[in-house]
Amino acid sequence: MSKKVAVVGVGQTAFTRSCGISIREHCFEAFKEALEDCGNLSTKDIDASIVCSAPEYDKQRTPAGLITEYLDLNPKPTFLAEAICASSSVGTRIAWAFINSGLHRVVAIIGFQKMSELTSAESQERMLRGADIMWESPFGSMMPAYYAMFARAHMHQYGTTEEQMAQVKVKSGEYSVMNPKAMFRKEVTVENVLKSRVITSPLKLLDCCANADGASCLILADEDEAKKITDTPVWISGLGLASASISIGSRKTVASLSCAFEAANQAYQMADLKPKDIDVAEVHDCFTIAEIMAYEDLGFCKRGEGGKLIDSGETYVGGRIPVNVDGGLLSKGHPIGATGGSQIRTMVLQLRGDAGKTQVERAETGLVHNIGGIGVYGSVIIFRR
Amino acid sequence: MSKKVAVVGVGQTAFTRSCGISIREHCFEAFKEALEDCGNLSTKDIDASIVCSAPEYDKQRTPAGLITEYLDLNPKPTFLAEAICASSSVGTRIAWAFINSGLHRVVAIIGFQKMSELTSAESQERMLRGADIMWESPFGSMMPAYYAMFARAHMHQYGTTEEQMAQVKVKSGEYSVMNPKAMFRKEVTVENVLKSRVITSPLKLLDCCANADGASCLILADEDEAKKITDTPVWISGLGLASASISIGSRKTVASLSCAFEAANQAYQMADLKPKDIDVAEVHDCFTIAEIMAYEDLGFCKRGEGGKLIDSGETYVGGRIPVNVDGGLLSKGHPIGATGGSQIRTMVLQLRGDAGKTQVERAETGLVHNIGGIGVYGSVIIFRR
Repeated sequence: MSKKVAVVGVGQTAFTRSCGISIREHCFEAFKEALEDCGNLSTKDIDASIVCSAPEYDKQRTPAGLITEYLDLNPKPTFLAEAICASSSVGTRIAWAFINSGLHRVVAIIGFQKMSELTSAESQERMLRGADIMWESPFGSMMPAYYAMFARAHMHQYGTTEEQMAQVKVKSGEYSVMNPKAMFRKEVTVENVLKSRVITSPLKLLDCCANADGASCLILADEDEAKKITDTPVWISGLGLASASISIGSRKTVASLSCAFEAANQAYQMADLKPKDIDVAEVHDCFTIAEIMAYEDLGFCKRGEGGKLIDSGETYVGGRIPVNVDGGLLSKGHPIGATGGSQIRTMVLQLRGDAGKTQVERAETGLVHNIGGIGVYGSVIIFRR
Repeated sequence: MSKKVAVVGVGQTAFTRSCGISIREHCFEAFKEALEDCGNLSTKDIDASIVCSAPEYDKQRTPAGLITEYLDLNPKPTFLAEAICASSSVGTRIAWAFINSGLHRVVAIIGFQKMSELTSAESQERMLRGADIMWESPFGSMMPAYYAMFARAHMHQYGTTEEQMAQVKVKSGEYSVMNPKAMFRKEVTVENVLKSRVITSPLKLLDCCANADGASCLILADEDEAKKITDTPVWISGLGLASASISIGSRKTVASLSCAFEAANQAYQMADLKPKDIDVAEVHDCFTIAEIMAYEDLGFCKRGEGGKLIDSGETYVGGRIPVNVDGGLLSKGHPIGATGGSQIRTMVLQLRGDAGKTQVERAETGLVHNIGGIGVYGSVIIFRR
């Protein structure tokens, strides 16, 4: 490993139900904020960009070309990286390799999704085609259906309860009101969750994250550039990326996500850290059960004890391992390509000590867990200040 | 630059009008051939894969998950890289960085496109949405229309003729009959080209490449692994990638592709070579005019003298700089995501001395030029045996 790589700038739009502007404008907003966050870095200082998004939500094809022209990044290299909901984490991995290898010094990772152009039916149709269209989609395999299956398996195998899942949303709501960029900013009770409309039993409306429009931007740099740009670089110290079968029938279990477990092992090994060394984490809570599974896949508790961990309060600020103290996907909304970038932004603010009311004291090491699809792609990245 | 990176295995399906099989089967065929080309490497030896394809030609979304499951590559990392027609060259760049940085040792780049699922009208609609859908697509901006504009500009500015463009296709036809994987395997005359149906003046049917189904696979490895796997590694010695504005109106000229020129400069500089040092080249001849522009953008002749270069015969085997002696896109067909991989495969065979009847004698250094869209993305990669 030849060069250290740091996140030196972060930006994010507010996540909303309907941004009402074009994808280029939306990306511009996040990019501009990231440049300003780097002490007004110029576009000339960016050596390359990676655009991260899941296709078919808006009509523009090959968006990297369109967006980078608008951001004044021609003739710098650009392309699209896609791993559905984990796209901008994959972009971060690629940027790390570009910088570590010396190919580039400063790289921008621009994640976006504009989901409001689709009707609900169109959105569901896209979701179906994210599963195996030959062998699974015909059976109506939607995201809530898969995660409901995961939840049932977890309940059956470990005794996890609907109340415990609801507790994940309660925590999310508590922090959402402190995040001005979150889409839903409201505290909720366990009862609110349990009484919300059933989507796919056992998941209720408030157990699910929501489609959103949003963009995020991360700027990564090598050690020399990082030190010129900022006094508070946040270093990437561990990277993990793994895959699991897209067909659910081929998995050994549906009570955990093997891609997350594999990716976490890679990241811990590269960073030479253990789960107990992590001070704060962002995990992919697309559904409440997903956060509980993440606790276990990441080693924050033993297998099967994720329900107990949320009950214990140890994943709140002040606890042993605060998780999703920005409200997570459940409150922020989930604009697919922008989500990983938003998680990493939160982590960077935490490790800089700039997280305001949700600051985890003496946070030195943070972990970001970002899942693509139904656990097909799993990314875990560990950061140190 | 810490580690040398080699191509150690290549595979490709025949490119056809309609493969009649699923994308996973098609990719399997190319992957299997690449593994066999590596002396029966096992899937266990592959550390990561990058799937390269342009979305929306077939119905499967997030194909990386689907394909890598079928290729028995779980739980290895995977994702999609997209730069339209330059996707698998971008995949190669990313794989180089992964290996050079030490993150992975052996990486498979799997490019594919199944274009036969769409009707002609659907295919045209996709093409339109590859331009700026807000400001250009509404005016009917199709690929042949753009390249016809490039051709007119080149004719006006440099006196290039339709006969010279036709000569590019004549060369393509001559080599196509020696390439068993080419879609069109037929010699043609200048007259055949000139008398073929006008598509967008001055481009006739035989000036244009055609949609195709196809898959390609490249296996890259670091120096230690490469030497274990093969006696004939082909080393990557220069990488260039650049972008240009997606909106044609913002370009300074339409008689050349600035992204190709920029990418070539980067690649020559990294390889410490000059155009005259290149022994054989593969260029992105999506239209006959594109090959003529490539000669100039790559420095094989002076600006404006591309027409004279094809006339001179120097781009045939035995000439000063043989170009597209596998028939190029014009004869092979252009299955978007697979095209760059096919070009690199040809180059690897040339530099190994395994190119049969089209072998360029004493070829030691080769260049692959791969363009995405209307010159939005340009990749140039230089290889050495």
